[in-house]
Amino acid sequence: MTFQGATSLNIALIHHPVVNKRAEVIGSAVTNLDLHDIARMARTYGVENYFITTPYRDQHLLVEELLKHWETGHGARYNPARKEALSLIRLCESVDEAIGTLTEQYNKKPLVITTSAHKQSNLILYDELRQKIDKKEPVLLLFGTAHGLSPELMQSADGTLPPITGRTDYNHLSVRSAASVVIDRLLGSRE
Amino acid sequence: MTFQGATSLNIALIHHPVVNKRAEVIGSAVTNLDLHDIARMARTYGVENYFITTPYRDQHLLVEELLKHWETGHGARYNPARKEALSLIRLCESVDEAIGTLTEQYNKKPLVITTSAHKQSNLILYDELRQKIDKKEPVLLLFGTAHGLSPELMQSADGTLPPITGRTDYNHLSVRSAASVVIDRLLGSRE
Repeated sequence: MTFQGATSLNIALIHHPVVNKRAEVIGSAVTNLDLHDIARMARTYGVENYFITTPYRDQHLLVEELLKHWETGHGARYNPARKEALSLIRLCESVDEAIGTLTEQYNKKPLVITTSAHKQSNLILYDELRQKIDKKEPVLLLFGTAHGLSPELMQSADGTLPPITGRTDYNHLSVRSAASVVIDRLLGSRE
Repeated sequence: MTFQGATSLNIALIHHPVVNKRAEVIGSAVTNLDLHDIARMARTYGVENYFITTPYRDQHLLVEELLKHWETGHGARYNPARKEALSLIRLCESVDEAIGTLTEQYNKKPLVITTSAHKQSNLILYDELRQKIDKKEPVLLLFGTAHGLSPELMQSADGTLPPITGRTDYNHLSVRSAASVVIDRLLGSRE
């Protein structure tokens, strides 16, 4: 693989292992809009690869079917811009597989950074990570579906970004909004 | 009405008048996820009111039905946080009606600011608008569905924010992503 994107940032949307509202480790279902909204955002900002991570075979088949509509089906003719965004999507079974793919692409293991709605001990600030990306250091940024990434994934990461806070103590963003805000903070223009 | 929110920022998602891909003025359909994602974002950041703007009576009935599930139905018990976010939603028929509601609430006409994927002549920068909000100046920020706000709405506004650009020339964000980025730039913490 070659270096295709405008940046060295890669993202993964994790469907397993994540936690439910009782903090139990579960697998979640892939949703169509997570593919579209986050792919459009990734394409706009120059994210290199957007990994959809799930170990479930039926979910892989579902995603392949959805993508086919936009790659070669009616969608490709109706909306070529959407095809372009969705072409960033890579289906994989685990975070380890995504790390392997990127290690091969960059000839270097990427920095693995997690996101969470709760403050973690291994913090990496937005500016710090932005600077690494500006230096073309390969980064894999993980977003959790359901109620967030499993403790196992959080602990194995090289760092965690601070939670997104607004001006209230309400803390229930959709992963689509959270990913948009985080990507803008890392790659957005500062005008 | 009293001042309830953490900030003086109000947002409206416009379903008419907006344009389609051929730049014709149309009305679009309300989608469930636009209500949820943007309400959760608005509640997190302390947006005061989230107006859903459409002149169509059947669309009002649809939104009322959806909201009822979360206000008093099963959803209210299953997910009280969602109820809290959706309580920011105000249904209205036009931008003028939203302006009227806010003028009554604040005893002052709000500054009406538009957003667009294309650069406009009446620019107001993010920092400039952020400072006005920090001074508690009432602001109504308009987001367009479909292919964006009508030229009529753009021209009648007090200013337009710069388009969101990443590090590519791709320019097709979902309104959910665009609203998330814009609200974070206006109200997000700067750590």
